Amino acid sequence: MEQAELRYAKRFDGVTGSAIRDIFKYMSLPGMISFAGGNPSDSALEDELISEIAHTVLRKHGKKLLQYGATEGWPGFREQTAYFLRTQLGIEVGENELLPTTGSTQAIDLLLKAMIDDGDVVLVEGPSFLGTLQALKLYGAKLVPVGMDDQGLIPDALEYAARKHRPKILYTVPTFQNPTGVTMSLERREAVLRLAGKYSFLIAEDDPYRQLRYSGEPLPPLFSLDDCARVVYLTSFSKLISPGLRVGAAVTRNQTLLRKLTVGKQSTDVHSASLSMAICTEYMERGLLPGHVEAIIPRYRAQLERILSGFQRFPAGSGHTRPDGGLFVWATLPEGMSALELLPRALEKRVAFVPGTYFYADGGHLNTLRLNFSNSEVDQIDEGMRRLAECMAI
Amino acid sequence: MEQAELRYAKRFDGVTGSAIRDIFKYMSLPGMISFAGGNPSDSALEDELISEIAHTVLRKHGKKLLQYGATEGWPGFREQTAYFLRTQLGIEVGENELLPTTGSTQAIDLLLKAMIDDGDVVLVEGPSFLGTLQALKLYGAKLVPVGMDDQGLIPDALEYAARKHRPKILYTVPTFQNPTGVTMSLERREAVLRLAGKYSFLIAEDDPYRQLRYSGEPLPPLFSLDDCARVVYLTSFSKLISPGLRVGAAVTRNQTLLRKLTVGKQSTDVHSASLSMAICTEYMERGLLPGHVEAIIPRYRAQLERILSGFQRFPAGSGHTRPDGGLFVWATLPEGMSALELLPRALEKRVAFVPGTYFYADGGHLNTLRLNFSNSEVDQIDEGMRRLAECMAI
Repeated sequence: MEQAELRYAKRFDGVTGSAIRDIFKYMSLPGMISFAGGNPSDSALEDELISEIAHTVLRKHGKKLLQYGATEGWPGFREQTAYFLRTQLGIEVGENELLPTTGSTQAIDLLLKAMIDDGDVVLVEGPSFLGTLQALKLYGAKLVPVGMDDQGLIPDALEYAARKHRPKILYTVPTFQNPTGVTMSLERREAVLRLAGKYSFLIAEDDPYRQLRYSGEPLPPLFSLDDCARVVYLTSFSKLISPGLRVGAAVTRNQTLLRKLTVGKQSTDVHSASLSMAICTEYMERGLLPGHVEAIIPRYRAQLERILSGFQRFPAGSGHTRPDGGLFVWATLPEGMSALELLPRALEKRVAFVPGTYFYADGGHLNTLRLNFSNSEVDQIDEGMRRLAECMAI
Repeated sequence: MEQAELRYAKRFDGVTGSAIRDIFKYMSLPGMISFAGGNPSDSALEDELISEIAHTVLRKHGKKLLQYGATEGWPGFREQTAYFLRTQLGIEVGENELLPTTGSTQAIDLLLKAMIDDGDVVLVEGPSFLGTLQALKLYGAKLVPVGMDDQGLIPDALEYAARKHRPKILYTVPTFQNPTGVTMSLERREAVLRLAGKYSFLIAEDDPYRQLRYSGEPLPPLFSLDDCARVVYLTSFSKLISPGLRVGAAVTRNQTLLRKLTVGKQSTDVHSASLSMAICTEYMERGLLPGHVEAIIPRYRAQLERILSGFQRFPAGSGHTRPDGGLFVWATLPEGMSALELLPRALEKRVAFVPGTYFYADGGHLNTLRLNFSNSEVDQIDEGMRRLAECMAI
């Protein structure tokens, strides 16, 4: 069929989709050990329980779940999420200070819709979460990466960037960051908040991994250190209950912003799937969340320990982070070694990872890579790290 | 708490959210007869069946439904939707020519994301669907309304607007339009397609009501009359299975566009809720859709007939459409009478509707109103029309 030429929006110029899609194609090959994804472990997904809960909520709420709902979300879900935030995350908010979203990805998208005009500057961590980098590009944001170390964002670098670029937003994953696994220290959290006040930018605190802590003590979210509604908190049930249900929330004490997020959502998907929200609600109402988190942590902890011990096989001059939680470890290869060049050799040996360069708004950093440990058995982790080290030895 | 001043995106300037939200607040008052919504009838929602299906698909597919899925959607859903389009709507497409979306609202949002730069012109019907008008404003589109009559869009008016404004997109609901209930004639469909070719614009054909036909013969979708992939077809299961599940799809033969929609969706919500897609898949696999549509039509037909007969109570000089399907009838009051002024009196008498002016990109048309008939029993419809007429007599 002859096809008409279409005139597309400029926002897609140079945006080609997630760079790691090509890697995912290899993940289903037989024998592949994948450190590439970011999925929670299949073993953490309670399919029989969720099946029963789905049946139960549909019998309990019937047509209300199937009919159109409010953009503001399933009422019980708002209540339970606020309760979860207060009791388990230490975030003092009411049910009218959050908007349920179709995963926390949509929370980011709606926040950008509410805040970002073409050319506005957004500060991101260097490196930062790939999905958000792509969303930011589609809103025409100018991305300015800010350096981080093993304590998180470096305040001097942040102040330099803030003074120079007058950003509208700082996007940060302060706890068990994707991709590095690094957690921002308390001092840094306080410094970041001071700078947000001084340079008048909003902080988007993306915090999906907070409860997956395997060692150390929890630090307060930026949101609860903030006394002037400068932080929007993004939470998600993807890592706790199920990513496939697509349930998250944006939390803010600023009602003007909340209203813009809600109006944006109205014309984006009207509301999130009510059944998904009701399943999460029932799950929380039954008080299952704390026990489930407790139950999945030992396995993740063992996987993390195993991958960390695998680094001893890496060549001299390599380094890596030592996360206290989350799903990712970040590795640095000896200077001059390229993770991009390593990748095809690794895939041939049936081990997958994501080159770190993709997580940098400005590219480069070719000797870095991200390793996910939650989707492989501990023996597979050993074998995968052995194969990776072998590729580097060539 | 003192609150920081935030700097928002310009796209929200002048966008205050759906104008009909205020009306919806009154809908739960006791005794209210509502012609204001656009919901399918509660009686058409099969809660017990869906409860069983949810249970079944979760037992069948388990963790796969709960884990992250592909942005391209649940594979079975793509297959079944393509089959549905081919066999029931006469739209010859394969499963790789559609993108599952979180309701057809998201399909529109993603299409605008892919196509519209700030200031681009989009032609809309006058009047048009409120939700799309709001989405268009948030993308900075310049809205140009095109006149319609009881045969749909008027070709001369369309050509005048196309020549003058060089639009990127024409948005149309050609079958049982929201808000008027009007269906575009075959001649008009052909004329609209010719003009799209002549003036190089894309047609967004929003077609959620097609199967709700109570009289007359189906006309082909613009999509199947198009021989150069100039039409994007938006379909939805909201009016057929359940709106609360939030499942729809964008259909296009243009793979470049499909890719942009997919990349846009990646950073908007990653994928739609897998459970929702799997429920619709199982529903279609069991072959339930044609029978369900057949089962719900008599009731809707009776409701439509009843509301049409209620118009005899309206004052001389009133007019109204005579839809062959869908969920809406459009009324015109005698010149000089204002539906906006009528509304508070009507709400006081416990009957709700939406003033027509809200559906016009350029406002005005104060003597028009939209009436939904699917959410009231036939006796309520009589009583509601009696109350409305009473308000006009004052």
